[in-house]
Amino acid sequence: MTPPSMETVNQAIGLEIARTSYSYSERDAVLYALGIGAPFDPRDPAELKFVYELSDDFQVLPTFAVIFAKDLINEFLSGDIAGIRYNPIMMVHGEQELEVFQPLPPAATVTSRFKIADIMDKGSGLLMVFEVTSCDDRGDLIARARTSVFIRGIGGFGGHRGASRKVDLPSRAPDRIHQETTLPRQALFYRLSGDRNPLHADPSMAAIGGYDRPILHGLCTYGFAARALIKQFCENDARRFCGLDARFSYHVFPGETLVTEMWRRNASEIGFQTKVKERDAVVLSHGRARIKV
Amino acid sequence: MTPPSMETVNQAIGLEIARTSYSYSERDAVLYALGIGAPFDPRDPAELKFVYELSDDFQVLPTFAVIFAKDLINEFLSGDIAGIRYNPIMMVHGEQELEVFQPLPPAATVTSRFKIADIMDKGSGLLMVFEVTSCDDRGDLIARARTSVFIRGIGGFGGHRGASRKVDLPSRAPDRIHQETTLPRQALFYRLSGDRNPLHADPSMAAIGGYDRPILHGLCTYGFAARALIKQFCENDARRFCGLDARFSYHVFPGETLVTEMWRRNASEIGFQTKVKERDAVVLSHGRARIKV
Repeated sequence: MTPPSMETVNQAIGLEIARTSYSYSERDAVLYALGIGAPFDPRDPAELKFVYELSDDFQVLPTFAVIFAKDLINEFLSGDIAGIRYNPIMMVHGEQELEVFQPLPPAATVTSRFKIADIMDKGSGLLMVFEVTSCDDRGDLIARARTSVFIRGIGGFGGHRGASRKVDLPSRAPDRIHQETTLPRQALFYRLSGDRNPLHADPSMAAIGGYDRPILHGLCTYGFAARALIKQFCENDARRFCGLDARFSYHVFPGETLVTEMWRRNASEIGFQTKVKERDAVVLSHGRARIKV
Repeated sequence: MTPPSMETVNQAIGLEIARTSYSYSERDAVLYALGIGAPFDPRDPAELKFVYELSDDFQVLPTFAVIFAKDLINEFLSGDIAGIRYNPIMMVHGEQELEVFQPLPPAATVTSRFKIADIMDKGSGLLMVFEVTSCDDRGDLIARARTSVFIRGIGGFGGHRGASRKVDLPSRAPDRIHQETTLPRQALFYRLSGDRNPLHADPSMAAIGGYDRPILHGLCTYGFAARALIKQFCENDARRFCGLDARFSYHVFPGETLVTEMWRRNASEIGFQTKVKERDAVVLSHGRARIKV
């Protein structure tokens, strides 16, 4: 694969590449919640409301909004977005930002618009930023997501390098630490929420990607972190959760233990990072959550 | 609740109570397979074909056919079938028989007919037998299921007692033993395949039913047994599996370990029982599987 021309890049920036309609049911919302590890302990009723649609206080976990962009994943896997061609196996999810403007309905038809917000030249590869805005049945804005995708091997095309989002974590010990072990089958459950990339299920495809075995979806780890934040700073009330930004800095293997370290910055902002305990590796960095007081 | 009159019972026997159409996708088939514990070890590729729809040799597990009757479960939960009234919490799944006539398609629209095959008076309760025949898009018979439901407290209405299905297991040691541990969240995954009975998720409803905590679906345990049989006697080829009969003799708590003991009777029939290891309790008895040589 060769890097794209600057003409292709300039034409792509700002382009709306798709509009989709996604209908989900309570079953989809529950499957997502189970896919990101809820409930941590089925004997503790606190998280039952995320996985049991007959609960009086059933809540859809707010990071379910990242699923609204699932059709975008199929675009990625096509290896051609707005004339920028690449080998999908060279693609990694770089960062994810999400703002949620209202509690997600238990079931809905959501309309999303996908735009290429920016394309950067990082030398070793190309970084594309997608913005997805999603509205509910009434046309009200529910969520805005920004997804950064890094494609190895097609950098050096002469584009701008862009700035890195800076999130310095305090030097003090974390205010809260939350630990959960993923299931060996976690990726097989999570992929049913939409991201069917073979990298997460098929050992031979994982080997082509340079991994010993299939890796967990970055957005699955991201969901575990969201649950940790909701539990530790929102008294498990998902309606208080307004947004989450993080960088996918390293891979996770299903079955590993995730440790999320959290620091309160002010009344409405929490900084965090998530590590894999077994390898003491930071897998989510530059973490920031916004909550309602 | 009072027992039904013999007139109501006689009118109910033989009645076709519903015809339904059920469309499933590969995602539903995979979710079912994960719900019954596949793959046992995600690092062993042998069972990946049951949970990864992009596999070259993707197979739908044949006991997925019990899901075709999932609308029947909602009938059960209504507490009124053909004029026979009862408290749904007093209902237990007694036995399940299944014949599969061809490999299940990866996705299909299945038409099922539900008939009340028999109603028996067991003294302490009433036993209803439902027969569900399911055909594929072309009208070809795929599966026939017989579901026995025992309803405590409304026996003694003067009906016939019926015969018990006899399956004596050999006195020799089992030919094969297969052990798997269920997930603490197993019932929460399994219920997404259709049986939303609160008994399997809600601790307060489980308490009303007389259990310390939510119990696993009998048909989930049944699926674990089917996988054990397919693995041990069909070289993991689901196409060789033709049918499975079993009695739900005791409950299973999610997280417990299932031990299936199997005896070959002849080239095409296997006898089996499934125990919970932690309590040394037989949970599936009178087990019989039919396989192709």
